[in-house]
Formats: sequence, C-alpha cells, structure tokens
Amino acid sequence: MAAAMAAGTVATAIPLHVRADKKLVVHHVFFWLKNPDSIADRDQLVEGVKTLSKIESIRQIHVGVLASTEKRDVVDTSWQVSELMFFDDLVGQKTYQDHPIHLAFIKNYGHLWSKVLVYDAIDA
Amino acid sequence: MAAAMAAGTVATAIPLHVRADKKLVVHHVFFWLKNPDSIADRDQLVEGVKTLSKIESIRQIHVGVLASTEKRDVVDTSWQVSELMFFDDLVGQKTYQDHPIHLAFIKNYGHLWSKVLVYDAIDA
Repeated sequence: MAAAMAAGTVATAIPLHVRADKKLVVHHVFFWLKNPDSIADRDQLVEGVKTLSKIESIRQIHVGVLASTEKRDVVDTSWQVSELMFFDDLVGQKTYQDHPIHLAFIKNYGHLWSKVLVYDAIDA
Repeated sequence: MAAAMAAGTVATAIPLHVRADKKLVVHHVFFWLKNPDSIADRDQLVEGVKTLSKIESIRQIHVGVLASTEKRDVVDTSWQVSELMFFDDLVGQKTYQDHPIHLAFIKNYGHLWSKVLVYDAIDA
C-alpha cells in the first residue's frame, strides 16, 4: 500500500513529456450550455468540472473556457466549457467514468448543458 | 539569451499541474483523412504532426489516434489523428501558427486530410 502510494506520487511528479514509454489516454469533453450567454452558468459548470480533479486516476486536468485566438473557419467557438484529462491507460479512464464523484457531477450540474461532445485519444 | 534559455528549461521541467498561476492555452486539432481507412496515411500524418514538436513555444505536445474507449453517443470517433498542444499564452500560440515548421507541415502533409477541426481553450 505504501509502495503503491509512493509509486503514485512519483508518477505524478514526473513531467508527462519525459514519460515517453507511457501511452497516455487523453479525454477531452466540450460542453454547450443551455444558456450560452450566462457567465453565471459557465462559472458554475467550471466549478463543477473542477470537483472531478479529486478522482485519483486523473493524472492531469485542465478546465477550460474559449480562448480568444484568431477566428478561422476551422476553429469551433460554439462551446462554452471544456474538460481535458490525462489517464495512464484505459483502465484509468474507466475508473473515472464510473467514479461516484463523476456521477455526482452529472447529477448536480447536468441541468446546465444542452450538448456534450467527447474526444478520446491515445498517444500515437 | 542564456537567462532566457535557462528560464525556458525550468518552465519545461516543472509539471504543468503545479504551475497554478499560469493560464495555459490548449490547442486541440482533429484531422479527418481523405483515406480514413489507410493506416499508411494515418502513420504519415502522425509523423508529420510530430515534426511540430520542434517549435519552441509548444510547452507540451501529444499526437493522438482514436482510443478504444467505450462507444457512446456523445463520443466522436469519426476522426483519425489528433494534435494536442499547450502554450504559455496567446503569443505562444500565434508564434506556432506563423512558424515556418508549421507552414511546412501544412504544405507537406495537407494533401492527407479532408477536414480539420480546432478547439482553442484557456485555463478557467
């Protein structure tokens, strides 16, 4: 148990880019709010997504809002909140999907969004 | 110059999750191949995206392919290759967009894809 915890600590402390042997799983979720112009709803959802960071299989999490980059046809700017996570593997991702904190997030914040889109990638 | 390089080295070596003061810019691009079933084309594009890692304003890069996560209605599995990058700020992202290595990538590999979709987020 102590060994497992120590190993976990080490894994978290090593920058992702030097762990070339690991094929990380990237989970990126985009949310479209029911009230897309509501800053209050946006901030509430951001707060909700941040509760997910307590799930132990998440190696890195970024909660995002639209960046003010150059407007181009290829850039989708219609969403309001994003959730980007890294997992060590598919098991870590599955642990997250079924985790009580994740299920509570859907229950408590699901009324805020009208659409969700997910991209799951693995390091090539 | 030496100071700038040293600062750059330090920034890269610190895990992203401890740099809470920084609002990183996340740039996630999804590619749909003209020949979606061609593993050769997929691998060639992966190789192409990896050439981008030499661009100095990229803090972290992940080149991805579809992960075999559970199929659900909300998961888009129609793309073939992804490119995920982190920048320190919008200036870093702009430096990347205009960089000769990026322009060479579009010129040399652009024939492989039929569609590109971009999401630009900033830490909330």
